[in-house]
Amino acid sequence: MTDRAPADDPDYLAALTDLLGLLAYAELVAFFRLSEDAALAPSIADKAALGQMAVAEFGHFELVRGRLVRLGIDSEQAMRPFMAPLDAFHAKTAPSDWPEGLVKAYVGDGMAADFYRAIAEFLDQDSRALVLEVLADMGHAAFAVDRVRAAMDADPPLAGRLALWARRLVGEALGQAQRVAAERESLAHLIAGGVSSASGQARDASELGDIGRMFARLTDQHARRMAALGLDA
Amino acid sequence: MTDRAPADDPDYLAALTDLLGLLAYAELVAFFRLSEDAALAPSIADKAALGQMAVAEFGHFELVRGRLVRLGIDSEQAMRPFMAPLDAFHAKTAPSDWPEGLVKAYVGDGMAADFYRAIAEFLDQDSRALVLEVLADMGHAAFAVDRVRAAMDADPPLAGRLALWARRLVGEALGQAQRVAAERESLAHLIAGGVSSASGQARDASELGDIGRMFARLTDQHARRMAALGLDA
Repeated sequence: MTDRAPADDPDYLAALTDLLGLLAYAELVAFFRLSEDAALAPSIADKAALGQMAVAEFGHFELVRGRLVRLGIDSEQAMRPFMAPLDAFHAKTAPSDWPEGLVKAYVGDGMAADFYRAIAEFLDQDSRALVLEVLADMGHAAFAVDRVRAAMDADPPLAGRLALWARRLVGEALGQAQRVAAERESLAHLIAGGVSSASGQARDASELGDIGRMFARLTDQHARRMAALGLDA
Repeated sequence: MTDRAPADDPDYLAALTDLLGLLAYAELVAFFRLSEDAALAPSIADKAALGQMAVAEFGHFELVRGRLVRLGIDSEQAMRPFMAPLDAFHAKTAPSDWPEGLVKAYVGDGMAADFYRAIAEFLDQDSRALVLEVLADMGHAAFAVDRVRAAMDADPPLAGRLALWARRLVGEALGQAQRVAAERESLAHLIAGGVSSASGQARDASELGDIGRMFARLTDQHARRMAALGLDA
């Protein structure tokens, strides 16, 4: 798939439009969410550090939007199908305090990065480079792990609440992702195609099964991240 | 005052530290507030436009913080006295919808800019240049006026509610400003000095009177801005 020219393949272009629209809106929302978290931060130094990460997410949003524009795609139209599921996810998982916000950022960014990275290898070269650039960790994970560990050291019972919180986040995220996969046929096809090739399975495996297996793999990777944080998945 | 070297004059340095600390924290909060407003925006295009303005405010925050650092001042300590009044102002004036957010940004930025501009002429050259750069309008006022007018055209009774809202904003802002002036002696002195020199009054006018006159002038300028918006002040 590496030398595919998006414009030559209408099915691929439709899937790519969905993927970039999803990524662009996700980055825009990540910008809003990080800014909100920054406002919750206890110290000015943490506010400034998170603010800087938020600004970087906005830069990513502009990069992805620029790629859509260069492909001749209406970027707003590409993002619109993903507003409802992403806004719903964030509305249902508004953090009630600073540690919950950190765990959400860590879990959410980690799962999103695993998802896009898995799909990236089935994209044309320019799109893949863009997706990998946008996903490069900006130190946010290390920042979150450090601050969450400090908060749990200061208040050990917090670990149980945060473990439950992380399970809720993953449940909501997978629920919204299933909804998107059901509604966006070409995107689902891209995800399923990616899974089949990566795992070497025959292409006649059911698409929904492939998507389910991809989500299961994301959940495994999530469990490893939770362990790094010192929490049960 | 234009060739004053901050380090040579402890009183001036204390006042400048306050002014830059206030400005830095105000820019950081403006970044948070604009991001929140952007999240309320009805269209992705408006979200992106406001997001861009928020990112610019964060750049201003970094500029002012950099100036504090170059002056050898602990930037966090300089900002800290202004967290409570600025956070209180924003907590008491959380917009309930998109037009209220726009009016708040327009009124708040306008008054803040008038305030800093009035003081800027009494600062050393480098600090003045910095303050003027940070206050340069980034098109936010025009954006807000355009969107608020459109909202009132679509819903004429909105004008009355927004006029009341703007009066509340100014009342809260002046209340917090009076509190700051009462608590921060050197800053109050700088503000009062600015007023006296600017108006040519004798320096024996009471400092509180001077500060009151400055606030009155800000209120006059606010009334002109409200007229530009088509609202009663």
